[in-house]
Amino acid sequence: MAQPLALGIDIGGTKTAWGLVTATGDIVMKGSMATTGHDNPAAYMAAMADCILPHLQQYGIENIVGAGVGAPNGNFFTGEIVFAPNMPWHGVIPIARMAAEALGIKAQLTNDANAAAIGEMMYGAARGMKDFIVVTLGTGVGSGFVANGQLIYGHDGFAGELGHVISVRDGRLCGCGRNGCLETYASATGIAHTAEMWLTERTDDTILRPHKGAITAKMIHEAAEAGDAMANELFEYTGKILGYTVADAVAITSPEAIIFFGGLARAGDRILEPVKRHMEANLLNIYQNKVKILQSALPDADAAILGASALAW
Amino acid sequence: MAQPLALGIDIGGTKTAWGLVTATGDIVMKGSMATTGHDNPAAYMAAMADCILPHLQQYGIENIVGAGVGAPNGNFFTGEIVFAPNMPWHGVIPIARMAAEALGIKAQLTNDANAAAIGEMMYGAARGMKDFIVVTLGTGVGSGFVANGQLIYGHDGFAGELGHVISVRDGRLCGCGRNGCLETYASATGIAHTAEMWLTERTDDTILRPHKGAITAKMIHEAAEAGDAMANELFEYTGKILGYTVADAVAITSPEAIIFFGGLARAGDRILEPVKRHMEANLLNIYQNKVKILQSALPDADAAILGASALAW
Repeated sequence: MAQPLALGIDIGGTKTAWGLVTATGDIVMKGSMATTGHDNPAAYMAAMADCILPHLQQYGIENIVGAGVGAPNGNFFTGEIVFAPNMPWHGVIPIARMAAEALGIKAQLTNDANAAAIGEMMYGAARGMKDFIVVTLGTGVGSGFVANGQLIYGHDGFAGELGHVISVRDGRLCGCGRNGCLETYASATGIAHTAEMWLTERTDDTILRPHKGAITAKMIHEAAEAGDAMANELFEYTGKILGYTVADAVAITSPEAIIFFGGLARAGDRILEPVKRHMEANLLNIYQNKVKILQSALPDADAAILGASALAW
Repeated sequence: MAQPLALGIDIGGTKTAWGLVTATGDIVMKGSMATTGHDNPAAYMAAMADCILPHLQQYGIENIVGAGVGAPNGNFFTGEIVFAPNMPWHGVIPIARMAAEALGIKAQLTNDANAAAIGEMMYGAARGMKDFIVVTLGTGVGSGFVANGQLIYGHDGFAGELGHVISVRDGRLCGCGRNGCLETYASATGIAHTAEMWLTERTDDTILRPHKGAITAKMIHEAAEAGDAMANELFEYTGKILGYTVADAVAITSPEAIIFFGGLARAGDRILEPVKRHMEANLLNIYQNKVKILQSALPDADAAILGASALAW
């Protein structure tokens, strides 16, 4: 008999990616399609089934243990995506049930950052750890908290929204309607936003200036690598806010490590060095010099698939 | 054979209390002694053994399943009290081992707020809950976080220091050496501190004024009950800081309830109503109108003993 495989599906705002994964974390097949451009969730799911079903048949449906799905605002308990601001459809979408029906296998849902945390615990930087945090720095900021070896889902399945901790009282307006959320400063979008503001308010010489209006986190990283002063200051500013915010989270769950993942984390030590420095400066003494600040070692494109697939075992 | 009993010991900065507790939470015997006035931890422990051993013999040492000890900065993993600022002895004290040797029974240590959380889960307002937070509002602010039905100890046993989350950036100096910690504002000591500052800075008419220099949380509660405007404003101000800080904690663990305990919590709705209002005003929409704000239903004097005893089962 062929080896058992789990299907991992990562639903993002623009792209949906999937893969068939062995119990040891090898991806034997992967694919992707656009999340957008479908009339409704049912049409989207039908298109996904058209893409995936031939592969399930190829590997033998009897060998597929089930599907794990990661999606923004995905709820583990209800299997529903609830009010996800960056998804093409709003309201409540029973995605786990729809996937199970469309694919003919059982399916579990969780949010994308929780899936990344499971992926890190099973296959990545958190192997062997029982207490850690994964923080995703992408369009927004997501997080998955693991304590006692278990993901913290909370009583309703919605735990782990570090991106919506208020880092700056009365700060920037967030997509959630409140002010000063961490993700308005410390996401890939947030650091670009800071850059645009500074380019408007300030007159320093910077190689970012010609790109005003279209700054990305990647551009800021490249400018910093080239020695640009404003770019370095952007990482310092962003790392300070992220660092003191994770210091508060450490006081709650006392993790062995915080693992950063996603677009802005690809800047590596440019962002992680100021994060670590400002975290340490804001930690209660009993936590100092204990918490590892790590960059995810999983390939970005694979981690979400691996994490989602791990739900199915 | 007589029923099995667990010994619960609550070590406070001034008083040490203990009790023998049945599996269903009945305290069959209790006692107390001063924590202070002993030359060193060994002398303190010898005095405690002198008080407790006759009772263990009375109920039959073979019926005692063990001792649970709750103490400030008590570490579950190491059994040590570590750098507790409000204790008569500093440094690292291996209290679990000392208690086990002095009493001749096995002993487990945890911090006082974690003990309260276990007490609430087994015998109090959190019965049947798997995800909740207990916050103690005493001389300082302590907390115990429960997720998936388990206390969050963190990788090193020091999780759950909500009192040292920074509520006000560059705010009041804390005993820990940092600035703006929640406990500098929202403890029994913190609200009294705010009152003293206002009495110095302001000239309003208030029945608190004659007590300037010796204000307590209890006095502020009584003044508020008597309709005093400044006393009410003190609860509003303190409740706002506590409310928005617990809103951030909700975004991390998404608890079913937050249970308040200790001196300032005895003010009941005077403090809990503004806490709930400001928490709701600062919650991300997915958490709104879900999190219960409760006052502990356990008698203050008993809860710590019950919680500590629960460690022994």
